[in-house]
Amino acid sequence: MNIAEEITRRATEVEAKIHPFMPEGPGLQQTVLDAMDYSVFAGGKRLRPILMEASFQMFGGTTDAIMPFMAAIEMIHTYSLVHDDLPAMDNDEYRRGKKTTHAVYGEAMGILTGDALLNWAYETIAAAIVQYPGDARLGRAFAVLAKKAGVFGMVGGQVVDVESEKKGQQVGQEKLDFIYRLKTGALIEAALMIGAILAGASEAQVDQMEAAGTRLGMAFQIQDDILDVTSTFEVLGKPIGSDGRNEKVTYVTFEGLQKAKEDVQRLSEEAVAILEGCAGEHTFLRELFRFLIHREK
Amino acid sequence: MNIAEEITRRATEVEAKIHPFMPEGPGLQQTVLDAMDYSVFAGGKRLRPILMEASFQMFGGTTDAIMPFMAAIEMIHTYSLVHDDLPAMDNDEYRRGKKTTHAVYGEAMGILTGDALLNWAYETIAAAIVQYPGDARLGRAFAVLAKKAGVFGMVGGQVVDVESEKKGQQVGQEKLDFIYRLKTGALIEAALMIGAILAGASEAQVDQMEAAGTRLGMAFQIQDDILDVTSTFEVLGKPIGSDGRNEKVTYVTFEGLQKAKEDVQRLSEEAVAILEGCAGEHTFLRELFRFLIHREK
Repeated sequence: MNIAEEITRRATEVEAKIHPFMPEGPGLQQTVLDAMDYSVFAGGKRLRPILMEASFQMFGGTTDAIMPFMAAIEMIHTYSLVHDDLPAMDNDEYRRGKKTTHAVYGEAMGILTGDALLNWAYETIAAAIVQYPGDARLGRAFAVLAKKAGVFGMVGGQVVDVESEKKGQQVGQEKLDFIYRLKTGALIEAALMIGAILAGASEAQVDQMEAAGTRLGMAFQIQDDILDVTSTFEVLGKPIGSDGRNEKVTYVTFEGLQKAKEDVQRLSEEAVAILEGCAGEHTFLRELFRFLIHREK
Repeated sequence: MNIAEEITRRATEVEAKIHPFMPEGPGLQQTVLDAMDYSVFAGGKRLRPILMEASFQMFGGTTDAIMPFMAAIEMIHTYSLVHDDLPAMDNDEYRRGKKTTHAVYGEAMGILTGDALLNWAYETIAAAIVQYPGDARLGRAFAVLAKKAGVFGMVGGQVVDVESEKKGQQVGQEKLDFIYRLKTGALIEAALMIGAILAGASEAQVDQMEAAGTRLGMAFQIQDDILDVTSTFEVLGKPIGSDGRNEKVTYVTFEGLQKAKEDVQRLSEEAVAILEGCAGEHTFLRELFRFLIHREK
């Protein structure tokens, strides 16, 4: 298996799977429908739905109910990027080499597009729950997604990140871990957990996937920091060193580049070890975990 | 029944019922937990949960599952106000005589508090769905709430409203109706529908409650416009005539004050007539509908 090709192939597949779950016009609110579409299909690695599906396959899942959840997690990830890029937040004009949503549609529409995407993710899940009324796994998957996306998950991490920046505080290890674990890690945990839940895995297995997700998410975010200082605009599609210019404390500024690289390696191998302790065919997931620590963008 | 006193009594009751559903710290993300609390308990008529519970009682509902939905709809209503008040939107410093969320916590935190509240509403519903796994009514109620809150509901209305203002277009009757029906009406429809659904009402009855909600929502929003030109700062708790100063086209500027008042009366009586066509004890709901057209704030 060429893992890079396989990821690209799966990302393309994911996009085709998400597409039918997007809202359809026409309507007087066409602008926001267009902006939702623009935001979701502006590229991206589709890492969360790929992880979700791979976890689902590893535990032998077969139900089509995985698809609305794959779409929903990508919508939630996208809304978080749209809001993070806003002028009042990171004020980013570009992401993945393309104009950000508010840069194209204006600030008010950027806020509303994020709101619409977050809400649409739950509309998508609500439709699935209505479609599979007897299947309690969907309710549990919904609860995991909502928790990991919210104030004790992604939003909570973003809050502490924004506060640390605005106050220009030196964040300590505890705060940095909290930010990384929640802001990036929480949705990655959710992806792996939901795949397991919908496939009918045991509670213990779901907990294992959460533990793998915590480590993978942390490794992924630290790798992001590393790339911010070592990559190039052409490869990354956004300005390089923006963290440093904003005097943002990252894992790299805190621990140094060498220690950061070592920790990415260690965390990834821990995540792989957890996978290997689970039953099921996990070749793709393992290669994906390992690939993420060598990625260049 | 003194309806004004009864509404006040129920609003106080609703606040006590919402309270246990709010997220609890402590945590490093304390600021957003505080801001969520500040936003939800900054006052308000609690109209949507009151309507939901009254509809539920009218159809003989008994399950406790109504409570998380009452909390969730108020959280969604609150998030929409928090985002509407943002500098990039209406840029309001005061609401109900108190500082708006972004005015207290800053713009970034205003965005994140709204996000957190919207997501928390769904976390609250997810917990209820997990708690009542065999009850398909909860899934249907979730689907209604999500739809009415989203791009084909409240957010859709807000998008067209914002666009009309920014472009300084003269909105026509069709667009104004769309804005009012979705921005204000959709959640009022949801409140009445969800009460009916969770009480076990028939699909036809749920449709009737939606139709009543459409009319009530429209009447409520037109009354808001009327109050904007006829009330005082002391009564309303926000600057008067702000719509006019922003050169915003409202139902009143479009149709004139007299026609607006007549339409509020007509729509309210249509809503009451629908209620009277339904089975069940609807005295409170009827009086509430009528009260809303005489309200002064």
